[in-house]
Amino acid sequence: MEKLTVLVLDDEHLIALLVETALLEAGFSVVVEHDAASGMSQIKALGADLSALVTDIRLGSGSGWDVAKHARGMRLGLPVVYMSGDSAHEWAAEGVPKSVMIQKPFTVAQIVGAVTTLLNSESSLI
Amino acid sequence: MEKLTVLVLDDEHLIALLVETALLEAGFSVVVEHDAASGMSQIKALGADLSALVTDIRLGSGSGWDVAKHARGMRLGLPVVYMSGDSAHEWAAEGVPKSVMIQKPFTVAQIVGAVTTLLNSESSLI
Amino acid sequence: MEKLTVLVLDDEHLIALLVETALLEAGFSVVVEHDAASGMSQIKALGADLSALVTDIRLGSGSGWDVAKHARGMRLGLPVVYMSGDSAHEWAAEGVPKSVMIQKPFTVAQIVGAVTTLLNSESSLI
Amino acid sequence: MEKLTVLVLDDEHLIALLVETALLEAGFSVVVEHDAASGMSQIKALGADLSALVTDIRLGSGSGWDVAKHARGMRLGLPVVYMSGDSAHEWAAEGVPKSVMIQKPFTVAQIVGAVTTLLNSESSLI
Amino acid sequence: MEKLTVLVLDDEHLIALLVETALLEAGFSVVVEHDAASGMSQIKALGADLSALVTDIRLGSGSGWDVAKHARGMRLGLPVVYMSGDSAHEWAAEGVPKSVMIQKPFTVAQIVGAVTTLLNSESSLI
Amino acid sequence: MEKLTVLVLDDEHLIALLVETALLEAGFSVVVEHDAASGMSQIKALGADLSALVTDIRLGSGSGWDVAKHARGMRLGLPVVYMSGDSAHEWAAEGVPKSVMIQKPFTVAQIVGAVTTLLNSESSLI
Repeated sequence: MEKLTVLVLDDEHLIALLVETALLEAGFSVVVEHDAASGMSQIKALGADLSALVTDIRLGSGSGWDVAKHARGMRLGLPVVYMSGDSAHEWAAEGVPKSVMIQKPFTVAQIVGAVTTLLNSESSLI
Repeated sequence: MEKLTVLVLDDEHLIALLVETALLEAGFSVVVEHDAASGMSQIKALGADLSALVTDIRLGSGSGWDVAKHARGMRLGLPVVYMSGDSAHEWAAEGVPKSVMIQKPFTVAQIVGAVTTLLNSESSLI
Repeated sequence: MEKLTVLVLDDEHLIALLVETALLEAGFSVVVEHDAASGMSQIKALGADLSALVTDIRLGSGSGWDVAKHARGMRLGLPVVYMSGDSAHEWAAEGVPKSVMIQKPFTVAQIVGAVTTLLNSESSLI
Repeated sequence: MEKLTVLVLDDEHLIALLVETALLEAGFSVVVEHDAASGMSQIKALGADLSALVTDIRLGSGSGWDVAKHARGMRLGLPVVYMSGDSAHEWAAEGVPKSVMIQKPFTVAQIVGAVTTLLNSESSLI
Repeated sequence: MEKLTVLVLDDEHLIALLVETALLEAGFSVVVEHDAASGMSQIKALGADLSALVTDIRLGSGSGWDVAKHARGMRLGLPVVYMSGDSAHEWAAEGVPKSVMIQKPFTVAQIVGAVTTLLNSESSLI
Repeated sequence: MEKLTVLVLDDEHLIALLVETALLEAGFSVVVEHDAASGMSQIKALGADLSALVTDIRLGSGSGWDVAKHARGMRLGLPVVYMSGDSAHEWAAEGVPKSVMIQKPFTVAQIVGAVTTLLNSESSLI
């Protein structure tokens, strides 16, 4: 089976690694970037091959809010999962619709669960 | 019973009037403004007395996207309903989470239904 | 068409009257009681003819929490809508599952909307 | 404002009339037919102008199940509301996804609520 | 603990094997068949021991649409997950209510997620 | 990453062990107790460090219904998952809102799925 690609954006390398590992074990391809500008470039490079975005809010050279808006502008139904420690209260104003905000601390099982739930509901849109 | 106040923002006066009438009949108090700057002022003036926002996207002196973000920044759980003819495809990137986008043409019953549904789910948050 | 019967329980007679009027206009039959004991008796008397319960929390001779549990014990899927001023924070511990809590102030359109939404999802259970 | 057109299909003329009246009061245009073949013809004639289908199950010359499948084949996201007395248990096998089954007895407020809820969620699909 | 049995139907043996493996790892019993007729027979043989159906659309000797309708006719609330490459657009007309359509390419984590979500919501029906 | 703590309450030690193992593999910290009184004590001891409750219904010295109400009284949005063999029909009257009831037999994947889904929706409340 062809694999689905998830872009993981986090400037904390350890968290990015833990999320990447859990997504790989769940059967996804994973691309990891550590700042907003590189994330934007990957979204452009991946194009239609991008299946989901998992992003921290505070990133070097930009915010996860901006990356998600940019990505949704290119692909309307893209599943978006935000991870955040202290920016969760901004989600109501800055998040994109039908996204999931996961507050730290969290387990990687929550990230995998959010990605698969969003992918499944995207598949079932009519 | 005390009344809930809905702010309706639309630069087309006829649509604003139709929406206002339907919300009044459903038992709400309604404040109507016709451009983004006046909307922002009303949100500030109403403060905690504002119960829901119904807004067009294209407004003089700003956009409905901006007004909604501003309003959510002041009150996290504020019910937001967007009405739009040709900007509906931007909702995925520009809308706030748990908002409702209603595309024109619509009936005013849809607006009233969206406002009451959002208010009810806000009440039932735990 | 046969009518659906909604039991409305509120010790404030004015609110009970406003809710009753709105439900009648929406096409329901309405039975009104003003304390918990009379509510319990009506639930027993109506039996399978009861279609939904709309109840205040603070009632003479008991609470709306108790009335709803009693009613659900007799009919598993009964739509339950709570109205409350200052007891809404107790809903997470005292409410029954798949109920709706509507905080005062509210409009009667919210009550009618909550009842019809719960009835429709009950009809669509598989 | 341009109006949204709902097709109502019921061989009981009194119920069709009550549903039509409620939808008209809610601001919709309504087209009524009384058997499956006429319903199919109207769906073809209305084309993209059809905004929702409200149908009984047992109809002369066919079933509501077939009419809904036919309509969904022409327009993927069409809101579908079934009304039924004794066929509700077949919905799990014969209904289309994201449809609403409303069992008799019902009030017309439930029909209007189901149509507006489905239209609103269709508008908010991303 | 007693195990829940999932029937997996796919004429591509490799995909059936990957899905089977993931469901086994998640703690389910799995029965695999490769065509519609054998699927129908297994549904009859398993009876009340069948807990969920995961089916491809294009199968030898019939379609996944028909198998799911047959299965729902025997057990109303059966969780149904469709997997499909090029038939996903038919789901709106041919799928059963409250089913999940998962489009290829997918990861097996999505299948497991859809089955557990549907089982959990079936348990929580009131 | 800091870990989320789940309290598992079951008087059947084997089931408690299987659930504990699955939650540990999913990345949670797990505290296990075997009766209602010890569960109540742990809820008090854990305080804000408790992230979710997974509880059987029939427990020595009390019921899972009571433990969950007690826990929700201390923390409004606490995710609650009930496991039950023969008490599932009482959930409609005795369960807390936005809880999940999982009927035996089940797989541990359903428990993990329910916990992560509830945690994710709690994070995304506005």
